[in-house]
Amino acid sequence: MKIIDGGICAVDGVLASGSRKGKYGVTIILSKGSTAAAVFTSNKVLAAPVTFTKEIIKNGELSAIVANSGNANCFTGEEGMKDAKEMAKIVAEMLNIKPEDVAVASTGIIGRKMPLEIINPLINESAETLGNSPESSFAAAEAIMTTDTFSKEIAVQTTLNNGSIVKIGGITKGSGMIAPNMGTMLCFITTDVKTSKEELTEALKKAVDKSFNMVVVDGDESTNDTVIIMANGKSGEIDENFQKALDFTCIELAKMMAKDGEGANKYMEVTVNGAASKKDSEEAAKAITGSSLVKTALFGADPNWGRVIAAVGYSGAKMDEKTVDIRFKSNDETVEIVKKGIIIATEESEELKAAEKIMKKDEIKIIVDLNLGKYSATAFGCDLSCDYVKINSEYST
Amino acid sequence: MKIIDGGICAVDGVLASGSRKGKYGVTIILSKGSTAAAVFTSNKVLAAPVTFTKEIIKNGELSAIVANSGNANCFTGEEGMKDAKEMAKIVAEMLNIKPEDVAVASTGIIGRKMPLEIINPLINESAETLGNSPESSFAAAEAIMTTDTFSKEIAVQTTLNNGSIVKIGGITKGSGMIAPNMGTMLCFITTDVKTSKEELTEALKKAVDKSFNMVVVDGDESTNDTVIIMANGKSGEIDENFQKALDFTCIELAKMMAKDGEGANKYMEVTVNGAASKKDSEEAAKAITGSSLVKTALFGADPNWGRVIAAVGYSGAKMDEKTVDIRFKSNDETVEIVKKGIIIATEESEELKAAEKIMKKDEIKIIVDLNLGKYSATAFGCDLSCDYVKINSEYST
Repeated sequence: MKIIDGGICAVDGVLASGSRKGKYGVTIILSKGSTAAAVFTSNKVLAAPVTFTKEIIKNGELSAIVANSGNANCFTGEEGMKDAKEMAKIVAEMLNIKPEDVAVASTGIIGRKMPLEIINPLINESAETLGNSPESSFAAAEAIMTTDTFSKEIAVQTTLNNGSIVKIGGITKGSGMIAPNMGTMLCFITTDVKTSKEELTEALKKAVDKSFNMVVVDGDESTNDTVIIMANGKSGEIDENFQKALDFTCIELAKMMAKDGEGANKYMEVTVNGAASKKDSEEAAKAITGSSLVKTALFGADPNWGRVIAAVGYSGAKMDEKTVDIRFKSNDETVEIVKKGIIIATEESEELKAAEKIMKKDEIKIIVDLNLGKYSATAFGCDLSCDYVKINSEYST
Repeated sequence: MKIIDGGICAVDGVLASGSRKGKYGVTIILSKGSTAAAVFTSNKVLAAPVTFTKEIIKNGELSAIVANSGNANCFTGEEGMKDAKEMAKIVAEMLNIKPEDVAVASTGIIGRKMPLEIINPLINESAETLGNSPESSFAAAEAIMTTDTFSKEIAVQTTLNNGSIVKIGGITKGSGMIAPNMGTMLCFITTDVKTSKEELTEALKKAVDKSFNMVVVDGDESTNDTVIIMANGKSGEIDENFQKALDFTCIELAKMMAKDGEGANKYMEVTVNGAASKKDSEEAAKAITGSSLVKTALFGADPNWGRVIAAVGYSGAKMDEKTVDIRFKSNDETVEIVKKGIIIATEESEELKAAEKIMKKDEIKIIVDLNLGKYSATAFGCDLSCDYVKINSEYST
């Protein structure tokens, strides 16, 4: 497996484009006659495009995705549903495909009518400028950004067991409101693998569980989260090598989201090993990553590991103080903080000084070993800064 | 029922004192031969004094409480347990009571040895200055403060059905790490009601569920939370009037904690009515109160009600978009935001302008009616400010 250029357009047969006007943007991705699968928010308040796309995708077929930023089209009632349908219809007409093969996704403010007078011209513009170059993928990734500070895309290729080469491309937008089970995030993945609806759905769910569902920015779950994969079948049949490449793609995109968490200055990766169950490992890793106290300690470069242990304690995971190990790690250094429940990084110790040094880095790994079982999980997050507060105290005005 | 002066010392037969040195403080409360009950943190990491007091209080008898601020005596192993025992022993010797009738509580940093060379002299000082004046209660409330900006105490009296008058006094410390099921909070309640261990335990649990368990500051649950009540039996027998007064006492102390959440500029009270179950009403109220996005909107005086509805959506509570009402309320004004799923506070409406005005107030009530059932709950919280981030990024250094 290797990383390649081109984002979603690295995949043969995929066309994409994006256009923006002020805070609004529209992305279109065309991959005709694809097998498709999707994962959506678990929030009980569903944006109109989520309800629409859930229905559309039931038969496992898609030819295009249209997504807009700037307005979530959520809590907008029947009118919102009409607007989502209209977006799909315009795209279908312009691209000569069936409207029931067009998925719709939206991100932005909740509870305001979709401004189609702005969005429709952007749809036209994007549909007219579709291309299959790396620049096309870049434009698509840019147009779905909201408070993101950089666009997020990746492409990989891998060789299947039967020798054929498959490619996977992905773009995502993340930033605030990112939480376990996804926050306001949109992710669109293209691939040329040949697969059934069922196999593709299973593969996507597996990858999302290890990646987007393990990102914690502020713990709020959005009404609009959508991950869609379109597989146009131009290459070989799906197998475990494809799964590995899809996992990698989603994890890399998830890391980008965590690094670009609203107001984030620092990236945090938390691995919990030795848990008694898969659920325990995931819950403990997410509790640490999501703890406001751990996040502010990270912001302040404070090696306050007591907050890490307290977060494990309330996570619901089975734990025993006497068997816990904690390590802090940067790219070039690892320091033992607690070993089998004994504090190594005591006050004024060399270890505490080393931990302070690590906490000053931009990327910090926290590794907890519960030493109770064989299960592991990794969660992705960031610090909690004054900038997060500033960004989110001004959003709707 | 009426509010009276004197805090925990309003109750006949109660003596208290507190003394401080730098960031350390010690509070002693003496109420000889009391029936006692307690509620503790649900965190799996338990501070030594929690483990110690859980054992001590099993027989439902207490004569005194000793509490210190500045060090949590948590993750301190067998030595920590020895230190907690020593604190109880010193108090018992000085006050001529049995060491097994002394509860111990601690709050402060995790993972550092208790500095008994500082704490023991403070215990001596407090034990020598015990008094039953309002000033004694105030000193006790002051000595347990950590990042609190004001001390928290209250006293009430009520008439029981049999005509006798009972008093209840309480002090608490709260501030950061406050979450459902309690954060680092200590609360000590005195009363002269006559009761059994079982009745008192039930009464305390009921009151805590409506008060401290509904306070959300940062969602982190502490390792040290302790609420203890001591009832010295000098007045009449426990009845439902006592329960009402105890509920009121705990709710008022909980509100003070929310108002003094770390870095808080604004107080928020969230009531969810019309829920299909008690659990639904509690979960929805706590999800709104705990949402980082709602909290930052409050800080920025932004009437971003979409974040309120999104929080209800991910809370786990049963809801239907089409039946939801949302109101924002200040002391002198109420504004309808959403009525049966229809947005009233649309862009540029008078209602939205009124909502903006309300959001600028210091105390804001958010009322959600799910219109699905008969259950209600109220949660207490505050905004998320840059000061929260600053306070918590510097704590351990």
